[in-house]
Amino acid sequence: MLKYPKDLLTLIAHLKKLPGVGKKTAERFAFSLLEWDNKELFEFSEGIATLKERVQACAECGCLMDGVQCSFCDTSRRDKALLCIIGSSRDAYAIEETGNFRGLYHVLGTLLSPLEGKTPDSLNLPHLEDRIKQLGVEEVILALDSTLEGDATSLYLKEELQKNGIEVSRLALGLPLGSSLDFVDEGTLSQAFSGRQKF
Amino acid sequence: MLKYPKDLLTLIAHLKKLPGVGKKTAERFAFSLLEWDNKELFEFSEGIATLKERVQACAECGCLMDGVQCSFCDTSRRDKALLCIIGSSRDAYAIEETGNFRGLYHVLGTLLSPLEGKTPDSLNLPHLEDRIKQLGVEEVILALDSTLEGDATSLYLKEELQKNGIEVSRLALGLPLGSSLDFVDEGTLSQAFSGRQKF
Ligand SMILES: [Zn+2]
Ligand SMILES: [Zn+2]
Repeated sequence: MLKYPKDLLTLIAHLKKLPGVGKKTAERFAFSLLEWDNKELFEFSEGIATLKERVQACAECGCLMDGVQCSFCDTSRRDKALLCIIGSSRDAYAIEETGNFRGLYHVLGTLLSPLEGKTPDSLNLPHLEDRIKQLGVEEVILALDSTLEGDATSLYLKEELQKNGIEVSRLALGLPLGSSLDFVDEGTLSQAFSGRQKF
Repeated sequence: MLKYPKDLLTLIAHLKKLPGVGKKTAERFAFSLLEWDNKELFEFSEGIATLKERVQACAECGCLMDGVQCSFCDTSRRDKALLCIIGSSRDAYAIEETGNFRGLYHVLGTLLSPLEGKTPDSLNLPHLEDRIKQLGVEEVILALDSTLEGDATSLYLKEELQKNGIEVSRLALGLPLGSSLDFVDEGTLSQAFSGRQKF
């Protein structure tokens, strides 16, 4: 019984590390890469090799920079009275797409998760508090996942920031737009009830 | 509204060329690559850059070689009286896993598809007929997809090979193992009836 060439197996092992990619999908990817022409493979390989050098996180806010300056930190165009705390740099783009927010961001990089050793120290609270003070932030918006880890992190930050007299809000919980009640889970429905808004 | 850094967009465009990968998945892959360490990224990039140089198809059978010799063509260990025709080099591994076949392979590389300009010329029939003659093949087994293109290709090859008096068989059509009749489509069920076997 003949097996894949070892160099193909190595590539499959790398592809399997991508999120949601199992053995079968990784194999399919590898065989499809065999059909790419040399130029495409070279450019793809280059993009991976130089990724972290070319796409760096801003030391101030943690968002990704396109070049040497961080557009997310550009206070000439953005409102420094509002600071939105997000889990990962990717979340900033989703929020930008709404067109609803013109303040600054702060990327935590991780959420509290005692099981994975993510304690409050991982959140680097001193840096966050320094920023809030220096920018003169008036309201902090917590925009974290609505999960166990996200909720624990929101609660922790709320308490710490409120100690310093900072106004803290978080994203509303409720029915997703276009959802039918049949398909909404109990927890979401219960949040939508307790957070009902005047109509 | 801020957008992804341009180098990240380039990488996302490459990732989107992988089979079954849409915009959202490509973005997820790109952000996950940002979290890989440098060593992992370097090895992954290397594996892609050197893929086609290190993993080459055998000029004789079209299967992938692990090194300089083709194990699929090793007639000291495999039966040259049997030749199995497959669509892509990947199919050989699936057949090897069954442990049922010890003959040689012949990779077509494509199937007939007039709409995509895949005419009989694309199948390189002269090379196939040469191999059959030189090896002294007694039976050709067609192991192509059970699709419109696969069936058209099987039919074409059957007619061409039978002209030269070669025995041609093809994989059985019928119920997949462990399938329940409720979930089997009409076409499969109809094939299972007409191909029913003595019990
Ligand atoms: Zn920044
Ligand atoms: Zn070979």
